[in-house]
Amino acid sequence: MQDILDEINAELSSRSERGKVATYIPELACIDPDQFAMAVVLADGRTFSAGCADKLFSIQSISKVFTLTIALGKLGDGLWSRVGREPSGDPFNSIVQLEHESGKPRNPFINAGAIAIADAIMMGHQPKETLAEILEFVRFLANDRSIGIDENVARSELLTGHRNASLAHFMASFGRLSHPVEQVLGVYFHHCSISMSCQQLAHAGLFLVADGVNPSSGVKVVSAQRARRINSLMLMCGHYDGSGEFAFRVGLPGKSGVGGGILAIAPGKASIAVWSPGLDTVGNSKLGAEALEMLVKRTGWSIFGN
Amino acid sequence: MQDILDEINAELSSRSERGKVATYIPELACIDPDQFAMAVVLADGRTFSAGCADKLFSIQSISKVFTLTIALGKLGDGLWSRVGREPSGDPFNSIVQLEHESGKPRNPFINAGAIAIADAIMMGHQPKETLAEILEFVRFLANDRSIGIDENVARSELLTGHRNASLAHFMASFGRLSHPVEQVLGVYFHHCSISMSCQQLAHAGLFLVADGVNPSSGVKVVSAQRARRINSLMLMCGHYDGSGEFAFRVGLPGKSGVGGGILAIAPGKASIAVWSPGLDTVGNSKLGAEALEMLVKRTGWSIFGN
Amino acid sequence: MQDILDEINAELSSRSERGKVATYIPELACIDPDQFAMAVVLADGRTFSAGCADKLFSIQSISKVFTLTIALGKLGDGLWSRVGREPSGDPFNSIVQLEHESGKPRNPFINAGAIAIADAIMMGHQPKETLAEILEFVRFLANDRSIGIDENVARSELLTGHRNASLAHFMASFGRLSHPVEQVLGVYFHHCSISMSCQQLAHAGLFLVADGVNPSSGVKVVSAQRARRINSLMLMCGHYDGSGEFAFRVGLPGKSGVGGGILAIAPGKASIAVWSPGLDTVGNSKLGAEALEMLVKRTGWSIFGN
Amino acid sequence: MQDILDEINAELSSRSERGKVATYIPELACIDPDQFAMAVVLADGRTFSAGCADKLFSIQSISKVFTLTIALGKLGDGLWSRVGREPSGDPFNSIVQLEHESGKPRNPFINAGAIAIADAIMMGHQPKETLAEILEFVRFLANDRSIGIDENVARSELLTGHRNASLAHFMASFGRLSHPVEQVLGVYFHHCSISMSCQQLAHAGLFLVADGVNPSSGVKVVSAQRARRINSLMLMCGHYDGSGEFAFRVGLPGKSGVGGGILAIAPGKASIAVWSPGLDTVGNSKLGAEALEMLVKRTGWSIFGN
Repeated sequence: MQDILDEINAELSSRSERGKVATYIPELACIDPDQFAMAVVLADGRTFSAGCADKLFSIQSISKVFTLTIALGKLGDGLWSRVGREPSGDPFNSIVQLEHESGKPRNPFINAGAIAIADAIMMGHQPKETLAEILEFVRFLANDRSIGIDENVARSELLTGHRNASLAHFMASFGRLSHPVEQVLGVYFHHCSISMSCQQLAHAGLFLVADGVNPSSGVKVVSAQRARRINSLMLMCGHYDGSGEFAFRVGLPGKSGVGGGILAIAPGKASIAVWSPGLDTVGNSKLGAEALEMLVKRTGWSIFGN
Repeated sequence: MQDILDEINAELSSRSERGKVATYIPELACIDPDQFAMAVVLADGRTFSAGCADKLFSIQSISKVFTLTIALGKLGDGLWSRVGREPSGDPFNSIVQLEHESGKPRNPFINAGAIAIADAIMMGHQPKETLAEILEFVRFLANDRSIGIDENVARSELLTGHRNASLAHFMASFGRLSHPVEQVLGVYFHHCSISMSCQQLAHAGLFLVADGVNPSSGVKVVSAQRARRINSLMLMCGHYDGSGEFAFRVGLPGKSGVGGGILAIAPGKASIAVWSPGLDTVGNSKLGAEALEMLVKRTGWSIFGN
Repeated sequence: MQDILDEINAELSSRSERGKVATYIPELACIDPDQFAMAVVLADGRTFSAGCADKLFSIQSISKVFTLTIALGKLGDGLWSRVGREPSGDPFNSIVQLEHESGKPRNPFINAGAIAIADAIMMGHQPKETLAEILEFVRFLANDRSIGIDENVARSELLTGHRNASLAHFMASFGRLSHPVEQVLGVYFHHCSISMSCQQLAHAGLFLVADGVNPSSGVKVVSAQRARRINSLMLMCGHYDGSGEFAFRVGLPGKSGVGGGILAIAPGKASIAVWSPGLDTVGNSKLGAEALEMLVKRTGWSIFGN
Repeated sequence: MQDILDEINAELSSRSERGKVATYIPELACIDPDQFAMAVVLADGRTFSAGCADKLFSIQSISKVFTLTIALGKLGDGLWSRVGREPSGDPFNSIVQLEHESGKPRNPFINAGAIAIADAIMMGHQPKETLAEILEFVRFLANDRSIGIDENVARSELLTGHRNASLAHFMASFGRLSHPVEQVLGVYFHHCSISMSCQQLAHAGLFLVADGVNPSSGVKVVSAQRARRINSLMLMCGHYDGSGEFAFRVGLPGKSGVGGGILAIAPGKASIAVWSPGLDTVGNSKLGAEALEMLVKRTGWSIFGN
């Protein structure tokens, strides 16, 4: 495995076409695009990595996997009255679908859906309490209490996040939010601003590898059925309108973030985190997807194969 | 396995909510909705079935799996300039997406995409020759030379298929078809009118179970990569705007048809065909999906699990 | 003329189908739907009225005629880089068109367009100053210094105006607003909350009757060309996706508000204000439109006739 | 008046920016773009012209004014169950609106609407009979029996008219056409291929100037109300998604065709035909609209002015 990761790192380090760093969040715009990191945690707990796998980056939308898991824990199938589970066929921040479907977001991973999830998690609590709960859960999953929120990124999003504010107000106009728009957005922007390393992120995803049980600790995080369903949502909707492309090329459930990270799950085999800040045209890490494609080709981990 | 199928058959036979038989194709409207059949062919070739698994039904859109396979054989990755590979988020016969994307269909499984595939397969030949080729391929896959086209269904579709004619002319207006609209529609309507039993269909899908090789005959139909990619397209787009739902509940690549059939693939394990003519609101077999959900729950075959 | 108005009033007072009072602004929801008023000011200054023509009502979107006039005075044709001048074919609060056209509203009379106009008028000033300017202009047009803003309505809109907040943030996300969203919305909600009577409103519209000159005072408000263009925008876009219907039935430039008022202009002949709080399904005053239809039938004032 | 037309002709003859000749109908693609013609028939019957006002051109969508008039004569207000009367906000050949509104076209002047009108006129007759009736009506209006159909243009449209075929099949799929698609398209393509000169066209429009009565002959063609309503539809929808622009700049009801012609009506004053084959980006005659703008500026004929 280490050889494979080294090979991938070597091959990708020579790439000149690395995509473009996200610019709409000012704090992310100044990240050096030449960075790369990858970490693989096998089901048996062994860990491998390449590149700057301890370097913190902004996980952004990858955090939606964790908030979805929390929301399912709180509301169970009741969550699906608030958010759908179909791919949207639209960009991550599209509002067209919302107007056509009475303000109900298509799935938990487009921005509108994740905002609805943040609202669902709050359950009458203050943003600060809700964020503490989310952070606690991520630290528990990764077994690392050092994980925190990058306040500069959160502030940067709050100032420029007009599109997300528009989505939230739009849902509120249909009576679909239970808390004040500003508070929901506060929770959303902050959980997107969690900073993690590839090492931490790969560990945090491990419960999705083994049917809901963390194989290192033996702790059951969610039921087998729920773990599988979260994986299915990641596959169907985890890369916005590039989800089909990712399934086609990589063949693993995955969730990307505009910070350049991707968390991918090979059920029964491994949790994989990869980071490279340059994005492709639909907003997913360009080299990250390529690294995963190379990894799957070498390991045969595609969920669509024998 | 036989016990599982018998259980499923018994449990479903008592269901009163069976969905509605498709009415827009007159010849399909008169099918008795109380029928049910299921066949499972394991990777080692053993076959199990329940219900009227030898009864022929109209495979309709399931045929798109076979035409896609043929088209990939002829054009390779060149096919993707003609059709995309993202879920559409729209009903199977929507035209809105086509207008927004210059007449290029989102994926090979929505109607517009399958019409584009039919056009791609023709390569200058007559409809009759193309249909012979498609039929030959399906017979080869199922190892059954008795498989044929139901001319009554084909004629029924031709007479009422204004929506598909609209899609085809729309694509033609963007210069996206290489053959006359009437000929392309002829091929499309006829390959949708292939009749098969669950037994035949499950055998025909077997090459997708074992990375492109038919495990009974040892014949390599497509490369491992191509088999996996076809599976990924089935998962992402095989149930129209119910694809997310199917992935969530069943967790297997599958392709449905408005005739009430579903072909599902459990990679490395089995090819499964199920048939029940009543459809849910998005046009997929209601009891068919339930039968698959029960099967996966009992076997643990979800591609998203350990 | 007085006979005509009395006839109309008499005929409409017996109507039981009066439409529904707007409910999304709480302060408007409690208005008695059985009220009716109409005022006609001829080009020579003679005034006629029927019903409670001195009763104040919330002019709502009719105010957009006045803010458009101010904006054209400040920016001239430069305004058209910020807002289009085509009918939208969509409801007044639709956001779909905005996404398809990079956040540029179709015309000045849909909500998004009027919000963009409010932003254009501000020119670096505070909301309070801008509102004072708008109010001053309306008082000048109506020659009545008593006209004011209903603060209860404005507050009611601010609290529930999530849809408009969504539109404003959406435009802001495309960099289309020059002032903070909250300030622009403050101006917008307040100018929509101006209260006027039919008498006042008909007088305020008089400059559009006589090619930009107030015929009673002789004061030139705008150029002849501008007056005609404002009339054309009222005809094309003044009743949202009921504009075609209004042109077809009434045949006069007009602007409606969800408070139940309509201002209509018969060029060269008269300025007409009508008020009845019940709305039709697209949000225009039901009896108001009927009253205008009756008036035009009796006077032959249609701009489409001889 | 003659001086005005000569001035306009002189000024426009020096223009180098003349728009682009429509290319999607092959027969129209080879027209010389440097041609210009204009004819004005006053309400009192006096006629003025400039340029090649006797030269025949393909009136294309201008014919929709005549088929709408015939359809209203046959079905009266019953027509409005088949076609709406709102501007569409979309290009002339858009299909998106049709899908969102169950196959009912927004108005009689977009292509889908005119196809529905052709179907409505047929009333069980053959295409040839229907075309004879349309042609007879146009000859009667223009008082010129020499007017005919250009068969080369009609054939050219039939061969390449996939977009219109798509619209027709789409409506048929909703059960909105009463005759076979091919027959309806035959009627539509042929009435669009009527050839007329500006002289003939201006005479044919005269009944819309004088409330439905042809002022030269005294013959009543339609009621005053119907004439006004047709004018309102021309204003609201006569230039596709450039209708707002045309109302804003010209201020007269008008109908354009992709052949480069425009028929405009100044109620009570004149019927005007103008022709210049170069089109603007939304498909309306570029110089034609400018000529009308100049004419209205010099005559003060805007329906929005005093």
